[in-house]
Amino acid sequence: MSNYLTILGFNSAIPTVNSATTAQFLQMESDHFLIDCGEGTQVQLRKAKVKFSKINHIFISHLHGDHCFGLPGLVASFRLLGREKPLHIFGPKGIKEMLETIFRISEVHSGFKIIYHELESENSELIFENKRVEVYTIPLNHRIYCNGYLFKEKKKDRHLVMEEISKYEEIDISDFQNLKNGKDFTLNNGKIIENKMLTKDPDESISYAFCSDTRYLESVIPIIKEVDLLYHEATFLHELKEMAEYTGHTTALEAAKIAKAANVGKLILGHFSNRYDDRTVFTDEAREVFPKSYLPIALEAVKIESAKQKAL
Amino acid sequence: MSNYLTILGFNSAIPTVNSATTAQFLQMESDHFLIDCGEGTQVQLRKAKVKFSKINHIFISHLHGDHCFGLPGLVASFRLLGREKPLHIFGPKGIKEMLETIFRISEVHSGFKIIYHELESENSELIFENKRVEVYTIPLNHRIYCNGYLFKEKKKDRHLVMEEISKYEEIDISDFQNLKNGKDFTLNNGKIIENKMLTKDPDESISYAFCSDTRYLESVIPIIKEVDLLYHEATFLHELKEMAEYTGHTTALEAAKIAKAANVGKLILGHFSNRYDDRTVFTDEAREVFPKSYLPIALEAVKIESAKQKAL
Repeated sequence: MSNYLTILGFNSAIPTVNSATTAQFLQMESDHFLIDCGEGTQVQLRKAKVKFSKINHIFISHLHGDHCFGLPGLVASFRLLGREKPLHIFGPKGIKEMLETIFRISEVHSGFKIIYHELESENSELIFENKRVEVYTIPLNHRIYCNGYLFKEKKKDRHLVMEEISKYEEIDISDFQNLKNGKDFTLNNGKIIENKMLTKDPDESISYAFCSDTRYLESVIPIIKEVDLLYHEATFLHELKEMAEYTGHTTALEAAKIAKAANVGKLILGHFSNRYDDRTVFTDEAREVFPKSYLPIALEAVKIESAKQKAL
Repeated sequence: MSNYLTILGFNSAIPTVNSATTAQFLQMESDHFLIDCGEGTQVQLRKAKVKFSKINHIFISHLHGDHCFGLPGLVASFRLLGREKPLHIFGPKGIKEMLETIFRISEVHSGFKIIYHELESENSELIFENKRVEVYTIPLNHRIYCNGYLFKEKKKDRHLVMEEISKYEEIDISDFQNLKNGKDFTLNNGKIIENKMLTKDPDESISYAFCSDTRYLESVIPIIKEVDLLYHEATFLHELKEMAEYTGHTTALEAAKIAKAANVGKLILGHFSNRYDDRTVFTDEAREVFPKSYLPIALEAVKIESAKQKAL
């Protein structure tokens, strides 16, 4: 297992024959998250060969159609496929009313529970946590209430060095978790064995930040500081800066400035306006400021690697 | 110009990678109608190269997701493309609440007017009429309130026989419409020229009936009597007759019985359950009863021809 981001669609506003609207599938080892769900996402998930049963947590940035109109159909399909596990949906206040109205009129009777986590805060907050992962909101500035999401692996266990540990008969298997957590070991004679003699540094934890849709917004920089991978919208080139500002979007140059200031490992751009046929213009512009800028490749699983680990 | 049916999708319940849920685009000379609008219909319309601006009337059979979850996105795209013309949406009561709730929460502010025609009647009724075409509901029997739709060209104008007309100086261009309508012409001297001396029979008017989703229902037979083309759902083979009854659907054999009893020109089957990989089993079963049974071909425009005209 490892960490992979699969971008299912990255078109802005209107889906085209070759390009779906925003949706992403994020695998963080044994955890799986769906981020945004534009119309047609369930078919994109099929194309990416993602099992629907893996999806238990969906994070919606905002309630414009190109980010959420695939949700009713996906939930209806879950039901038709006999789902029983609860489904957690995180998104702006209003998402429950929208979905529940549709399900009532369309007579989608869930065999499973939908747990809505409606968001209203203007501040970054921890909204999900399990043993391995934390998810924080990234308040954005769009025409409608909107959050990006920061996915962070928690600090991982230290690696046991069995060659050293086996030298001490007193160290039992029941002590291993304490060692993994970094604790020293005290022998019966009172002598302390330093943890670093028995373990090696853990693997670096990885982090991923999703920022779409938003005006250029410097307040996201401290929140996404040093993430390994940043997806940031870049609807326009900088020559249309005023259009970006007016419609609540970012230019490629601005996205690169955010990536540079936050010192992220890698930047993937997306949410391109349909006026651009050749998308390489976006990376051309961004790389002037932040060389590690890339175009999204739909349906391809991109490995998320620790920038720190790679630098060692 | 002519009459064409383009089936955009015919999958039941869940869209797949290769097959969209129900939607059809019907051209009746200068009139264009969208029938049902499953998720992804806007992309299917793009693939079929249908200009969005041609669509002014949408007919929704029922409010299950596989027949209407593409509507919010289509309307939102209309708006983004700067539509100004009004849009007429015909469908079961509840469709307005569903769509208007979505548009309010999603902040889709229409620059054009949406005129809802909500249906509740259990009887067939004329719901649309212009100079050329009439549309009637076909009450169906599904798990939820559901109508099929019958599209009928009105009786067409008789063809003028100019060779004969030119023999009478008294006949003016302003008399032509009366002649096309079948009226005799009275000369100044009181002599009556019979219409059939001046005109030829008009082209036959064509008709198309869309029946999805429904249990086997003989009450549709008089409504769709002798239509040139019938699309009828056939979700299951007849060996799953009980399943069809339980879920509110028809078998291929039953669809063929309806087609035969109504003496239609041609039958296209659709709305197949995903359990069948090879769809030829449906036409194999139907043709035992009604030989002119066909499979749908997605995105291909099928010419609708008058069965009577062909028989002449």
